[in-house]
Amino acid sequence: MAKVPIVQNILAANDGMAQEVRQILAEHAIRAINIMSSAGAGKTTLLEKTIARLQGRLGIGVIEGDVETTADADRIAAVGAPTVQIITQGNCHLEANMVRAALEKIDLALIDLLFIENVGNLVCPANWNLGEDIKVVVVSTTEGDDKPAKYPQMFAVSEVMVINKTDLLPYVDYDMDAVKRFALAVNPRLRIFEVSCRNGDGLDTWCDWLLTFAAKKTVEASL
Amino acid sequence: MAKVPIVQNILAANDGMAQEVRQILAEHAIRAINIMSSAGAGKTTLLEKTIARLQGRLGIGVIEGDVETTADADRIAAVGAPTVQIITQGNCHLEANMVRAALEKIDLALIDLLFIENVGNLVCPANWNLGEDIKVVVVSTTEGDDKPAKYPQMFAVSEVMVINKTDLLPYVDYDMDAVKRFALAVNPRLRIFEVSCRNGDGLDTWCDWLLTFAAKKTVEASL
Repeated sequence: MAKVPIVQNILAANDGMAQEVRQILAEHAIRAINIMSSAGAGKTTLLEKTIARLQGRLGIGVIEGDVETTADADRIAAVGAPTVQIITQGNCHLEANMVRAALEKIDLALIDLLFIENVGNLVCPANWNLGEDIKVVVVSTTEGDDKPAKYPQMFAVSEVMVINKTDLLPYVDYDMDAVKRFALAVNPRLRIFEVSCRNGDGLDTWCDWLLTFAAKKTVEASL
Repeated sequence: MAKVPIVQNILAANDGMAQEVRQILAEHAIRAINIMSSAGAGKTTLLEKTIARLQGRLGIGVIEGDVETTADADRIAAVGAPTVQIITQGNCHLEANMVRAALEKIDLALIDLLFIENVGNLVCPANWNLGEDIKVVVVSTTEGDDKPAKYPQMFAVSEVMVINKTDLLPYVDYDMDAVKRFALAVNPRLRIFEVSCRNGDGLDTWCDWLLTFAAKKTVEASL
């Protein structure tokens, strides 16, 4: 089957482009987070709430990846962050060359922290580096606690797991201990946050951590 | 870019194999449904509840597609339906050759209705025919009502949309009219069911429709 080597070539070319993105971000002392999840876990809402909380304390930029529509970018722009929409037109994941092109449309001097919101898909985006510093996977309490076992690659490549929609815990069969156990079995170094974008629970802890995370790069850049 | 023709070749080969699957199913008067959704929308739970309700009235078989684990097949087998697990080992969708191989492991004489549960992914599975009669997309009320607009291909290729988790409507911001409007804009012929696998709402209507759907093939086969 000729499929595997072809895919490897594409991935290698992508990694080269990701390195270029990484260098551009480093030159501007920008930290970048590739944020991924199944469709509907709440990535865009998490970004809306995060940007609103960090306004004035951190320059945040967002690259929105969607198969179709500019709906997400419109929502993010409405909270006041510089936003670029990538429409993949059917492609199931972002690739580094798309991010490279999107960077041309953002005033990088204004940005400390760049969120790259990937296409909603718990499988394919895991294989594509975008030049980010870290990958964050968002799961939600309505998806079932077995997701890290069933889609392990996404959790293996991520540094952080955000468990969203904790406000719905009383109404669903979701075992918080189980999801953490499954996730840590795949990736013992995973940092875990529990949040509700609806009632605000856990968002302060998440935002405090983002401030520390973004500050590291500034320190690195000034050395 | 050499990528597009290569993908087209793979899709053409897949369509040939799907035709073979279709023929095998026709010979056994089996109706097949390719059931797709984002990860965590509730496909497996919907199948569990459906099989329990239709037990003794319809011979149901299930092919379970997962990236990893046999967790879903174990759940389905526990409700008493003949089940085969396909583990795609990283692949983000089922392909017809996988279904062809799985058919060898099922006693087709026992089956009237075959569910093929695809990998949880609202993007890639839409492009791969498996030899099914119809595609059913499952969405849930916790995913946001904009999914048909943002992932239109999945809704364009499906004959049926099942809206699951209606029991959670009081606790989420989900506009039932909006999701239907978005879905019907993409595909005006879409048949829509509203269900709660948790409290059972709507499952009778869904199961009645499945009975009619499965019966059609038996009539066709006997002509």
